[in-house]
Amino acid sequence: MVLSMGIKVGITDTTFARVDMASVAVKKLNEMTSKVQIIRYTVPGMKDLPVACKKLIEEQGCEIVLALGMPGGKDKDKVCAHEASQGLMMAQLMTNKHIIEVFVHEDEAKDGKELDWLAKRRAVEHAENIYYMLFDQKYLEKQAGMGLREGFEDVGPAKR
Amino acid sequence: MVLSMGIKVGITDTTFARVDMASVAVKKLNEMTSKVQIIRYTVPGMKDLPVACKKLIEEQGCEIVLALGMPGGKDKDKVCAHEASQGLMMAQLMTNKHIIEVFVHEDEAKDGKELDWLAKRRAVEHAENIYYMLFDQKYLEKQAGMGLREGFEDVGPAKR
Amino acid sequence: MVLSMGIKVGITDTTFARVDMASVAVKKLNEMTSKVQIIRYTVPGMKDLPVACKKLIEEQGCEIVLALGMPGGKDKDKVCAHEASQGLMMAQLMTNKHIIEVFVHEDEAKDGKELDWLAKRRAVEHAENIYYMLFDQKYLEKQAGMGLREGFEDVGPAKR
Amino acid sequence: MVLSMGIKVGITDTTFARVDMASVAVKKLNEMTSKVQIIRYTVPGMKDLPVACKKLIEEQGCEIVLALGMPGGKDKDKVCAHEASQGLMMAQLMTNKHIIEVFVHEDEAKDGKELDWLAKRRAVEHAENIYYMLFDQKYLEKQAGMGLREGFEDVGPAKR
Amino acid sequence: MVLSMGIKVGITDTTFARVDMASVAVKKLNEMTSKVQIIRYTVPGMKDLPVACKKLIEEQGCEIVLALGMPGGKDKDKVCAHEASQGLMMAQLMTNKHIIEVFVHEDEAKDGKELDWLAKRRAVEHAENIYYMLFDQKYLEKQAGMGLREGFEDVGPAKR
Repeated sequence: MVLSMGIKVGITDTTFARVDMASVAVKKLNEMTSKVQIIRYTVPGMKDLPVACKKLIEEQGCEIVLALGMPGGKDKDKVCAHEASQGLMMAQLMTNKHIIEVFVHEDEAKDGKELDWLAKRRAVEHAENIYYMLFDQKYLEKQAGMGLREGFEDVGPAKR
Repeated sequence: MVLSMGIKVGITDTTFARVDMASVAVKKLNEMTSKVQIIRYTVPGMKDLPVACKKLIEEQGCEIVLALGMPGGKDKDKVCAHEASQGLMMAQLMTNKHIIEVFVHEDEAKDGKELDWLAKRRAVEHAENIYYMLFDQKYLEKQAGMGLREGFEDVGPAKR
Repeated sequence: MVLSMGIKVGITDTTFARVDMASVAVKKLNEMTSKVQIIRYTVPGMKDLPVACKKLIEEQGCEIVLALGMPGGKDKDKVCAHEASQGLMMAQLMTNKHIIEVFVHEDEAKDGKELDWLAKRRAVEHAENIYYMLFDQKYLEKQAGMGLREGFEDVGPAKR
Repeated sequence: MVLSMGIKVGITDTTFARVDMASVAVKKLNEMTSKVQIIRYTVPGMKDLPVACKKLIEEQGCEIVLALGMPGGKDKDKVCAHEASQGLMMAQLMTNKHIIEVFVHEDEAKDGKELDWLAKRRAVEHAENIYYMLFDQKYLEKQAGMGLREGFEDVGPAKR
Repeated sequence: MVLSMGIKVGITDTTFARVDMASVAVKKLNEMTSKVQIIRYTVPGMKDLPVACKKLIEEQGCEIVLALGMPGGKDKDKVCAHEASQGLMMAQLMTNKHIIEVFVHEDEAKDGKELDWLAKRRAVEHAENIYYMLFDQKYLEKQAGMGLREGFEDVGPAKR
């Protein structure tokens, strides 16, 4: 008997983040489709994410990865986030696979409650993007230039 | 029967952008030549563009790619644009193919209407560059050092 | 007779740093497990760490590396730290191995005594992370999104 | 009959620049030696230069390339120049060939006339460097640490 | 007859620098050991150093390279130094060899005389590091965390 396990989707996250974004992303993806197999990989911090994603792609066979991180509000944290982003960029170019970066900066929210809400909503909306990228590329094409935003409200097209 | 499909040109764009630049670029290119076959690929955000371009080149056989993005006006957006640009640079060096970056920063325009105009005009003028790079390299050489600009007016040579 | 030497863990550090972080990290790791063999490699400064780590991985067979550095408080030092971090990122992506960066900035502490305390504590806590990454990945997954910090106190989840 | 074409030297420039630096560089090189064959390649902007240089090296067989660009005076232009420079750096490391970057920032000169003068003089002096690098490495060694500058006056050694 | 030439050490420097650091580094290394063969390579500016170092390693067989540069005091010079440093980092990772960066910023010294002194002293102390890295790794390990500085005085350990 051969059991098809579906397309492998990686989800990486950190112990540094202050919201468990991975769980809501997993839940959303599983609600949208039964055609994916999710592999989760938790690392200490943001800068550990790029090689974690690359390992999920090259060693575990993931077709796409969601990278969840939460940079702090200090200048040092901004530099770390930049370095992590550059790493995620490079990991994509080295593997020819998409890694969807979902970073929620602590200073984007006014308090812990809003941060929790924002992080989960952004994670969910990027889980949706993973779905469209894998199964419904035409949907994204129809939304091209529409000013979509993940987390806060969409801003919409420049000219209405 | 063999059907020649022409030189493949990739066009990548985003759902984040607030103007549909791809459509005007496609239209312009098709007006200038019937010798290209355009492949369009829409992704969520700017930082998804580099690997999208690389996939168009390596997996779809594109000879050149237009990368259309629209960074927001905040500091965070500037950093994202920088990371995306570095990725596009690296993608070119890894493939030995040109990727023409067309980024229109939201704060380049005074309002939504001007932003729409600017984005479309810049996309069109870079579609023209794609044409020259593929079919009329001599035209570009004649314009070397002439202070050309895409979008706003040309500034012209330093000394007249 | 074949003698198993355990999984190789690299530890790189510098003569530039003002605290001997490596010794406490080695001690901690050896307390936690007898299943690792530690290889230490000291270089002059932070920017010598990335290739040192890569050599430990590729020439000495290390499975994971701890990179210990201590950037000074001046602007020039911040740029050096950024360059070193980018190098550590790239070294990971080129080898598919984790390199845990432990940088303690001189200006994080109010005086030499606190700097000594902070550096040692952060080194110890990252030595623990090395242990979990090698032998107890599930522990990290349980701590995902819990706002853990190495050195100073954990900040905890955004919403309690 | 076999016609020796000499060592291939690439010259890349842009339609964005406001001075035709390539023509004076070509002229200077041809005055200094008949042992080189110059291949010119014009692209729209600075960020198109790195892959253009790499193509000249890998596809056209150039031994060394001169990359001529003219960043504007705005913050955005500075970031573009930085990205282009990083690309030129990477292109060199990927090919083991020198690419001499000749960037003239618009804000280095007080007006268009001085900009024209500066750009041409810097292009000429870097054309001379190309010559020394190819044919007279000893000349450069004799000038080591002498505080040479291309464009404006040499500043000379620190201690006289 | 076979003549052993010793371990090859590369030294790269620039005509842009205002102090001849290479000569004092060569002298120091030759005083410390007769087991090295030094290959010197002078280029115009700092940004030409990375590929020069890589060529010394890959084409000349150098085991380690000293990269001597002197960034000016202006903002533009700082950006160039950053780009050169990133290139040196990448060159190391691509070759698995150490390149010891010795950059002396013009604004580190109060006048030309001090700049001359500082540059030479830093070059000499990094020549010593080259020696230890090649022949006495244990010496560096004993100095780990001791707050050593090249050029100005050592700062020493954080806690005494």
